[in-house]
Amino acid sequence: MSVQYDDLKDLVKNENQIMIDNIPDEYLTDTLKRLRGYADVVIKPTSTEEVSKILKWAYEREVPVTPRGAGTNLVGSTVPDHGGIVLDLSLMNHILELDYETLTATIEAGVLLQDFQQYVEEKGLFYPPDPGEKTASIGGNISTNAGGMRAVKYGVTRDYVMGLEIVLADGRILNVGSKNIKDSSGLSLKNLIVGSEGTLAIITKCILKLIPKPEISISVVVPFDSLESGLESVLTIIKENANPTAIEFVERKVIKLGEAFLKLSFPYPNAQAYIILTFDGKKDEVSANLSRIKEVVLHKSALNFIILDDKKLSENVWKIRSVLVKAVEAVSEQEPVDIVVPINKTLEFIKYVNKLEKETEMQMVSFGHAGDGNVHLCVVRGNRVESEWIKEKHENMAKLYSKAYELGGITSGEHGIGLTKKEYFLNETKNINLELMRKIKSDFDEKHILNSHISYNL
Amino acid sequence: MSVQYDDLKDLVKNENQIMIDNIPDEYLTDTLKRLRGYADVVIKPTSTEEVSKILKWAYEREVPVTPRGAGTNLVGSTVPDHGGIVLDLSLMNHILELDYETLTATIEAGVLLQDFQQYVEEKGLFYPPDPGEKTASIGGNISTNAGGMRAVKYGVTRDYVMGLEIVLADGRILNVGSKNIKDSSGLSLKNLIVGSEGTLAIITKCILKLIPKPEISISVVVPFDSLESGLESVLTIIKENANPTAIEFVERKVIKLGEAFLKLSFPYPNAQAYIILTFDGKKDEVSANLSRIKEVVLHKSALNFIILDDKKLSENVWKIRSVLVKAVEAVSEQEPVDIVVPINKTLEFIKYVNKLEKETEMQMVSFGHAGDGNVHLCVVRGNRVESEWIKEKHENMAKLYSKAYELGGITSGEHGIGLTKKEYFLNETKNINLELMRKIKSDFDEKHILNSHISYNL
Repeated sequence: MSVQYDDLKDLVKNENQIMIDNIPDEYLTDTLKRLRGYADVVIKPTSTEEVSKILKWAYEREVPVTPRGAGTNLVGSTVPDHGGIVLDLSLMNHILELDYETLTATIEAGVLLQDFQQYVEEKGLFYPPDPGEKTASIGGNISTNAGGMRAVKYGVTRDYVMGLEIVLADGRILNVGSKNIKDSSGLSLKNLIVGSEGTLAIITKCILKLIPKPEISISVVVPFDSLESGLESVLTIIKENANPTAIEFVERKVIKLGEAFLKLSFPYPNAQAYIILTFDGKKDEVSANLSRIKEVVLHKSALNFIILDDKKLSENVWKIRSVLVKAVEAVSEQEPVDIVVPINKTLEFIKYVNKLEKETEMQMVSFGHAGDGNVHLCVVRGNRVESEWIKEKHENMAKLYSKAYELGGITSGEHGIGLTKKEYFLNETKNINLELMRKIKSDFDEKHILNSHISYNL
Repeated sequence: MSVQYDDLKDLVKNENQIMIDNIPDEYLTDTLKRLRGYADVVIKPTSTEEVSKILKWAYEREVPVTPRGAGTNLVGSTVPDHGGIVLDLSLMNHILELDYETLTATIEAGVLLQDFQQYVEEKGLFYPPDPGEKTASIGGNISTNAGGMRAVKYGVTRDYVMGLEIVLADGRILNVGSKNIKDSSGLSLKNLIVGSEGTLAIITKCILKLIPKPEISISVVVPFDSLESGLESVLTIIKENANPTAIEFVERKVIKLGEAFLKLSFPYPNAQAYIILTFDGKKDEVSANLSRIKEVVLHKSALNFIILDDKKLSENVWKIRSVLVKAVEAVSEQEPVDIVVPINKTLEFIKYVNKLEKETEMQMVSFGHAGDGNVHLCVVRGNRVESEWIKEKHENMAKLYSKAYELGGITSGEHGIGLTKKEYFLNETKNINLELMRKIKSDFDEKHILNSHISYNL
């Protein structure tokens, strides 16, 4: 049937929730703006009921729907590759309940991470997941099972999702999970939705687990004369049972880019690499852990142990750490990678990256979450012309993913697969696993209208 | 086709892995032995390859398969209701790898919880999930997403399953999950298998997360003059951020049964109810938390704060706590319930139970995991004749589940649904959720040969 997008106006409260002509470019792409799709209409629902009506309408007409939170993804998952509807959940950004007794919050999916973190911290509570991109929406964080800095101690987004309200492709609304802490009652549909990149259903509401806010949080910079010695120290730190919140690694050459980008200084410039640690919790506990780890790493190969008790200095260190992808991007186009390997393979993987960098003369900037084997790589274009860049980037990416899988690793630790990593993910994943994922996709969305071009989909 | 069970002998190494005639009664039931199925054959595979061959054989012939670990379940999930094959994984009980660098163990699914806990603790490591039944198999624990005492601090079995090797109904072998800490790479098939009660696939190998063993672990008995005051104190304790490992509640009248059953004494007999707390971790941390919680609960309505620093006394308290279901069962037949409600609804639920007990004159013994809203109830037969018992039990169970759902609760926190709770689970769960579970079942097992009569299945 011919699709009359104008009819959608009847399904929402206000006509200005819909854009049919002159759709702004931001709705057709992701943060990196390298891929562009096209859309017939952008709709901004304000309630679950509106989402339901819109999906029912789209399902009946087999119109593709690309859900979108804040559009901060890096892998093309908000690119409306097949046209149709861009479903922008940014107006569904209300905090609906803070339940002190169960330590849960119920919020709409479009709430931004930074707003939610600030809200709960002002009330003495804490939402541990802490991906670098604070302007992401919580719905987006759930859809990619976002990780971030604090995963070493606190786990990832999945660990804080207690329940979800979702809308199926055909418009039916259901709840998965609940405020209950334990659950052995049937298949865990909730855990299927977490990390499903908008391919199974639209998340409209989220029940999130909170914890009491830690008394203090202190970071430390530990400089090393090589990345190898730094990464070797990480396994020692983990075994010490000192419960670090974050363990990040970064090479001096990358820090320099961050310093230049922000015009800020990082401590101890005469090092080749750094481990940045955070400890949080009760004051006594944190200082006991700090002393113990200080002793351990200085006994190994650390050059110093710089406790960032100066608030300004601590902020600067984390600002520089958080800006690295942008700092690299400011110098040259780059392709972001967030491969994960088992934690004891991080060093071997980084060594491989360095070798590949030399062999191919393509710059590969690496840093990331040493505490959980989640390596962030920027594969840098430099001055390559378009055709060279595309060809060589593709060859190198294939090698990187292949090496990661050889080491027992996987494609993505927190960004998701989207469009840009799909080829590598499909290459490295067993057919039988993909077959099951695709069958499950059809269970939720038989007509394949929801983000059906990304991730595990054909 | 007519099924020749004798042919199965060709699929295993040794003929004595198969029992065709004179199948011992234990294979036809569960721990409680109230339900009985029938089986044509019991097979004990010794490898994943044997499991694969047996399933392929069964799938081609559409022979039902009932998987079985140690058979310790309480809900009839190992009852071979439709005949066919009982697949006993108890010979697959090898610890295959302890990886100190990634802090993971890889084991076969038939390893018993107690053996695994002992093994890792001897090596200075710790497997936190701690269900009461230590002779359960790890595969069984994963299939029910078992919880237990230490869930307050450490979470449940799901939180420690990093990867699984599974065999689909048609015999195909695959791996889900991995040793990687973060994962945003496609749908989480692993999380579907956890808690699926053997309905989707047979678990053959498990990669489990370990943590360093806590330095010390100390328990405390806190007596109260009513269960209400005890449960009110629980919310206060949780908000104190003192990181308790376990928070159990139990009424004096139940403790008495345990004391009589074991001929042991519980401290402070002149109380109506007790909260039992455990704290573990570093010595300083534990003693700081103990002092803080002592002050807080004595300031509320606690009658005392008995630190169990005497090893014998501590063991006795936990022995009594762990034996309660058996102690009740020794006096009369009973129906075990492990309803979960949001933690702030525990008291309301228990009050409802007490009211129902009075109204119906059916004894309902309650105790359980106060720290996570997981209430263990024994609904006691007393001297009712069979027909009365069945009728009244059924009426009361329906009321209990209905109340739990009204409070936002769910059917099971750790035992699973199996056969005995199926009716209540199906009654209280939305059709749309059941529909999705059943579609997923068919994705994994199109011919419905694996445990297809229990839980969410029709």
